[in-house]
Amino acid sequence: MSDLHLLSPKGFVASGIYAGIKTRQTPDIGLLICRAATAATAAAAFTTNKVFAAPVKIGRKHIASGKLRGVVVNSGNANACTGKQGEKDALRMCDLAANVARCKPTEILPSSTGIIGHLLPMQKIERGIAEAGLYLGDSAEHAHLFGDAIMTTDTRRKTAATTFTIGKQTVTLAGVCKGAGMIGPRMATAAPHATLLAYLTTDALITAPVLKKLMQQATDESFNSVTIDDHTSTNDTAVLLASGVSGAKIAGAKAIASFAAAMKNVCQFLAYQIAADGEGATKVVTITVRQAKTTKHAQAMARAIANSPLVKCAMNGNDPNWGRIVSAAGLAGVPFDPDKATLTLQGTVVFKNGQPLPFDAVAVSDSLKAPEVKVDLTCRLGKSDATVWTCDLSKDYVTINADYHT
Amino acid sequence: MSDLHLLSPKGFVASGIYAGIKTRQTPDIGLLICRAATAATAAAAFTTNKVFAAPVKIGRKHIASGKLRGVVVNSGNANACTGKQGEKDALRMCDLAANVARCKPTEILPSSTGIIGHLLPMQKIERGIAEAGLYLGDSAEHAHLFGDAIMTTDTRRKTAATTFTIGKQTVTLAGVCKGAGMIGPRMATAAPHATLLAYLTTDALITAPVLKKLMQQATDESFNSVTIDDHTSTNDTAVLLASGVSGAKIAGAKAIASFAAAMKNVCQFLAYQIAADGEGATKVVTITVRQAKTTKHAQAMARAIANSPLVKCAMNGNDPNWGRIVSAAGLAGVPFDPDKATLTLQGTVVFKNGQPLPFDAVAVSDSLKAPEVKVDLTCRLGKSDATVWTCDLSKDYVTINADYHT
Repeated sequence: MSDLHLLSPKGFVASGIYAGIKTRQTPDIGLLICRAATAATAAAAFTTNKVFAAPVKIGRKHIASGKLRGVVVNSGNANACTGKQGEKDALRMCDLAANVARCKPTEILPSSTGIIGHLLPMQKIERGIAEAGLYLGDSAEHAHLFGDAIMTTDTRRKTAATTFTIGKQTVTLAGVCKGAGMIGPRMATAAPHATLLAYLTTDALITAPVLKKLMQQATDESFNSVTIDDHTSTNDTAVLLASGVSGAKIAGAKAIASFAAAMKNVCQFLAYQIAADGEGATKVVTITVRQAKTTKHAQAMARAIANSPLVKCAMNGNDPNWGRIVSAAGLAGVPFDPDKATLTLQGTVVFKNGQPLPFDAVAVSDSLKAPEVKVDLTCRLGKSDATVWTCDLSKDYVTINADYHT
Repeated sequence: MSDLHLLSPKGFVASGIYAGIKTRQTPDIGLLICRAATAATAAAAFTTNKVFAAPVKIGRKHIASGKLRGVVVNSGNANACTGKQGEKDALRMCDLAANVARCKPTEILPSSTGIIGHLLPMQKIERGIAEAGLYLGDSAEHAHLFGDAIMTTDTRRKTAATTFTIGKQTVTLAGVCKGAGMIGPRMATAAPHATLLAYLTTDALITAPVLKKLMQQATDESFNSVTIDDHTSTNDTAVLLASGVSGAKIAGAKAIASFAAAMKNVCQFLAYQIAADGEGATKVVTITVRQAKTTKHAQAMARAIANSPLVKCAMNGNDPNWGRIVSAAGLAGVPFDPDKATLTLQGTVVFKNGQPLPFDAVAVSDSLKAPEVKVDLTCRLGKSDATVWTCDLSKDYVTINADYHT
């Protein structure tokens, strides 16, 4: 995937510039615009938090047509809990981006991420969007600057891309996302969790209803399966723009399956990178619950394990304290029988059929000193599996979040 | 309340001795026995975790009769995830305590707290219970030693007691509890969450059905409303023994109301002490959600706020980052409308009707440097209120839980 980037799919340009919204002098306003003859087919998933930011409110309206010309985003300020003025400001961002893209404001999806409860600095936003319009391009550098413009406490850019073929035509699908804290997404295409922002591009030709369905499915299997702090944000947004420029039509079961698989790969790799860059994280913890009665049950148990501060601290300390894991599965409020369950930590079975198994605590602890720890819980109650990605809880997490002042 | 203790209600003796189960040389086996002519009327609430410890399984059976002669407890080992041998060991604890109390083993409720997944050191338990039997008494010192015997990562004993009158008779109600981590209780008298252990005594005369109902009510308003890490334990148990020795009969609406009020006071004060002694805690955070549609909604929002690591870290850093609080209420999955809501931090209104209010950030931050922080969210959707107690999230929390090794 290494040479591909957000602008590899044909028909897109982007930019990222510093407008002085963030304290750190890195890009904080980004534009992503479809330059195809017609607007892009688009689908988006938004936070399901009852407290949703002004750009989410506007974005929901603008996505309803299934068509978008572009996306405008700022970091450093979430434009959330900002009342009527916040809505006006989000609409104004669309106006300004529409000027650049030469389209209707309703064809622009706005996003914001940063501190909650502060009005946007509109002078900086106005100047910034105009400036971003001057630097649009389709190079890797342009993709990277857009990627930087969406970051807040992220320590690195998160990107993924893939290509596949439909008949004889090559389709490219790419994405970029941000998120390190306030990450416990539960996004829905119908209605809309962390601030997770994800932007996906493809040059495939696809209809809006199909894309919407695939968007929810891919979001559930990826972004909605990553949790840093389980704090569903006011601003979470994932959006995909399909330019159609490749001419490859996503219609028929086989093509749809290929597209869905590509989306799943790209979105899961992006989600994994969010877990890896979680605030203060030293490792990714991949929790797979197998053979639950239903997928929802498997997800609930995996999420309960991932969200336990006790489990996360044990991971930080490389402590094979598996009782915390089994008990977290038991508190999820779904069917679970420890007498039928097996728990494996980095390949070592530590608990089986309600009983502790003897294991070499030093060796297992050593095996936890890894960039990724795999926790596998088999329930033997059914046939449904689920995976959730999280990270450990470190002292640095507390430093970052006790000192990130309003 | 200061002179009263667990053994102030007439009819009880207790002891606490060190049997070598805990590393720290403080008492780790406790006995509490009713010495009245007949066994005590009793009610208990247990964890609702699907993974429940052997003593919880046995305790549920033994409480079914509504009668208990006593309680035996050890700290340092939870006897959870220990299979059939764990059940045998919990039953053996009852046998040994029954020998001391001269009653049937089914009249004893066993409890354990500590590490999960290790068999109890039965030689130490056997010797320890016999020794505890030799040191029974009803002095404040005896109550304190029992209180020490139930502690794990607690830094201090938690006690509460009150007296009230029924007609001309004085009733005493007292309690002791433990819990600092794995605290997210959801206990139920019918079925049963952290390890929270609470033991209550009274010399009132009350029937088992009335006591059971009052027990659930008091538990919901107190222990089930405290959360440190929202990790419902395998061992949570709250039990009340009523000796009847005062002769004061709890029958009729007025007496029941008096008894319920006393229970609520004692249990809430115990729960508050658990929040204050949360692992690594520097302060209590009291979250009250007002005017929600239903009590369940108010509880869900208060709990979502209390469980957000972002909110807890902000409290640790004295940061009036109220956006984290409002957004946590929004993610609880219950009706909430920020446009109708008011948020008050230590008496300062910071958010009202969907809009941020200007406030002196330095002054509000200073007001957060207090042993108790009050967060008040008014929803204006109904008439139901709920309060949840929690603590801040500090670096010490991570140290305690990353290094508490198996």
